[in-house]
Amino acid sequence: MAVRAFVDTVGVAVAGAHEPVVSAAKSVMVPEGGSSNRAATLLTSGERVSAAHAALINGTAGHALDFDDHLSDVNGHPSVVLVPAILASGEENRLSGSAMLEAYVVGHQVMCAVSEALPVRPHWAHGWHATETVGVLGVAAAVARLEGLTIREIQSALGIAASMAAGSRQNCGFSVKPVHAGMAAMNGLLAARFVAAGIDADPDQLEAPIGFFHLFGVDSDLSKVESVLGERWTVTTRGLNVKRYPACYAVHPAGDAAVDLAKAGLNTRDVAAIKVTVQPTGLTGPIHHRPTTGNQAKFSMEYTVAAALVDGRLGLDTFTDTHVIDEKIQHLVPLVDTCESTTPPVGPGEYEKWYATVQITTKNGETVHARGDMPHGYTHDPLTDSELDGKFAECMAVPGVVWDGTELLARLRNLEHCTNVREVLAESTRTPHFPSSPTELESATTAL
Amino acid sequence: MAVRAFVDTVGVAVAGAHEPVVSAAKSVMVPEGGSSNRAATLLTSGERVSAAHAALINGTAGHALDFDDHLSDVNGHPSVVLVPAILASGEENRLSGSAMLEAYVVGHQVMCAVSEALPVRPHWAHGWHATETVGVLGVAAAVARLEGLTIREIQSALGIAASMAAGSRQNCGFSVKPVHAGMAAMNGLLAARFVAAGIDADPDQLEAPIGFFHLFGVDSDLSKVESVLGERWTVTTRGLNVKRYPACYAVHPAGDAAVDLAKAGLNTRDVAAIKVTVQPTGLTGPIHHRPTTGNQAKFSMEYTVAAALVDGRLGLDTFTDTHVIDEKIQHLVPLVDTCESTTPPVGPGEYEKWYATVQITTKNGETVHARGDMPHGYTHDPLTDSELDGKFAECMAVPGVVWDGTELLARLRNLEHCTNVREVLAESTRTPHFPSSPTELESATTAL
Repeated sequence: MAVRAFVDTVGVAVAGAHEPVVSAAKSVMVPEGGSSNRAATLLTSGERVSAAHAALINGTAGHALDFDDHLSDVNGHPSVVLVPAILASGEENRLSGSAMLEAYVVGHQVMCAVSEALPVRPHWAHGWHATETVGVLGVAAAVARLEGLTIREIQSALGIAASMAAGSRQNCGFSVKPVHAGMAAMNGLLAARFVAAGIDADPDQLEAPIGFFHLFGVDSDLSKVESVLGERWTVTTRGLNVKRYPACYAVHPAGDAAVDLAKAGLNTRDVAAIKVTVQPTGLTGPIHHRPTTGNQAKFSMEYTVAAALVDGRLGLDTFTDTHVIDEKIQHLVPLVDTCESTTPPVGPGEYEKWYATVQITTKNGETVHARGDMPHGYTHDPLTDSELDGKFAECMAVPGVVWDGTELLARLRNLEHCTNVREVLAESTRTPHFPSSPTELESATTAL
Repeated sequence: MAVRAFVDTVGVAVAGAHEPVVSAAKSVMVPEGGSSNRAATLLTSGERVSAAHAALINGTAGHALDFDDHLSDVNGHPSVVLVPAILASGEENRLSGSAMLEAYVVGHQVMCAVSEALPVRPHWAHGWHATETVGVLGVAAAVARLEGLTIREIQSALGIAASMAAGSRQNCGFSVKPVHAGMAAMNGLLAARFVAAGIDADPDQLEAPIGFFHLFGVDSDLSKVESVLGERWTVTTRGLNVKRYPACYAVHPAGDAAVDLAKAGLNTRDVAAIKVTVQPTGLTGPIHHRPTTGNQAKFSMEYTVAAALVDGRLGLDTFTDTHVIDEKIQHLVPLVDTCESTTPPVGPGEYEKWYATVQITTKNGETVHARGDMPHGYTHDPLTDSELDGKFAECMAVPGVVWDGTELLARLRNLEHCTNVREVLAESTRTPHFPSSPTELESATTAL
């Protein structure tokens, strides 16, 4: 399971590597990281920078497309904070793949334990961006494990991470959102390293009277921490929701239903009205009703359904600035009406957490409908290996990618047996090494 | 006033430069910053690193001794977050001294406005370390001013800084505390630079329904923001409390009173009992009653009074691990009894915010007493220029200091007329430049 998290997260980070927010974060951080410290690899370019900055930039890249995995239990995205920090520490310290996988398991467990005790849903509702506030603790624990901290040091690392926990959901929908994931990855790693260098924090910071749970929790129940930490292991019991579409997870069930309708032969020119019904709270996430950019389209129920009906598929190319303005899709967008209902109007009355129905009335008065429930790929219905590899290949096909996708996938799939994780990334670019001079860079670019 | 803030903050940062927490932060961040980016000067060594990392390390150094200025209106330390970030940006961009001073005035004003609207006292009581949570917004505003951001960009910079606002008071008393100041300095600077690179945040993040004031405030009153921003200028109307002793500001009045008693000729071998009375809440900060380390001693009413009675003075050398165990002082510590009272037992019944009385009973039954109110150096009773320069000189006399103190002071005093702030720091070390090779380093060290 942890291997799959690395495959999926590296894939979506490579696909997101050239998004404007990633280029911007990189343009600020790379000069900060200096060129003399080539500890860890940027998934954006194969370039090597310092570990903390690689964690920040790769974390931002991994979240830039909103294509990275998600877990309802943590109300956020576990792997996009854990994997970049673990890879950066692992590369710098030339650690084994199995050490990476163990650290991932630890980080996932800590994120689940903290989330259940907060509890995370009212924490999130209050306005905290849990991917960052909870994620930074998971990263600190994972890196502490990797870098061999003692129990007392791990306590300090979590205490320092608690003093770095931040992230406002009010900023979701703005380009800083993916940077939140990057900040959690960088800060969790720095917290562990500050401790290794001798800095300490309150060993009881999390549970203390004015500590983490007091500041970030709503009716916290700290007894939950121990029981969740006792699960063997949350990465298998809780798992991950792996996305098949690079969009808000809340639009996936409706997207599935609309793809089914398109595949059944719907002619979109005949459509008079489209009604989408989802479970209560299912419309909280998709806030853009008339999107004009790719980023807005990711959070639009109307656009997702319209695009799926027109194209018969949803892919990386669906949620781009150029595709959003497609006339056939924009023609359908205003025809989509959305509502929430406790009772699905189509299909069985029960559903597991989520459902979406898409009901279409054609111009000659006929009706057709389809329903999607928890989308394929979610924790209890995982993608097959072949489907996951297919998503990885789609990510590698994005223009500008410097990686040999086949080679990189093979190395990631073999992570458990890798003795030095540096080999995974260092030897998988299409060019033999990252060009260091402008001339060399130019010739390398031409060669691609 | 702003010039005085630079003099005082640079002085205490240089004095704190070799504290273990600073060496630790430096050992983590300097490799991250690489040696190729020499944008800004470390006050620790004269070495040059990237701007963000200089802000973090110098901010940590400035707070390491708890000798930096304080302001009750912000329940924290304005200059130790503002000055390191402003100097780093100013050096990297080769800006003028007057630009630095303007940016400082802006940052101070934003910290005061946010603090009054939160309001900061219940925010602090809830557990937030206001120096960092409020400071990061002040730094973002100051750097935004320095680096010429537009109005919309300044809104984003404050919004991003709000997503970085962090810091737990539960960690005060642990060595991570000064790092909080460094993180505020680094993150505020990064927030402004992310925006300049094209990343945006909610322009209404601070006042929005789940924004900064919602997350961090307790019965916030946002109408206060406008009135405080209208003050010309808070740096003069609110000012700064400049410390004369490197210890918690709350022990200063009692320290003053004890110094007065010692100077009046008290023989400490005759002391039978010492009673210290302070205003209500005056004992919240000094939490260490039997300190065994220099760091604990800074937060000990008992130790401060005992040391002042024995030595007749309080200085940088008072709050060190070696001085804490001085037998004459340790003999007095258990004789000190503390209490809070709304009515001062000695002197006038009124006091301005704070008071402390020290009442001593000798073995032959005689009593003597003295009283200190708001300590000299606080905002309405500033240090004279000569006293401030004396404190600076004391800071420069700490072993290991690489600066020519006289030269550095002259350059800081002339900041308003400096055309390129890089000259202030670059040309004031005792060695002509920072040695780059180990051999050169060794010979330079020998030469000192």
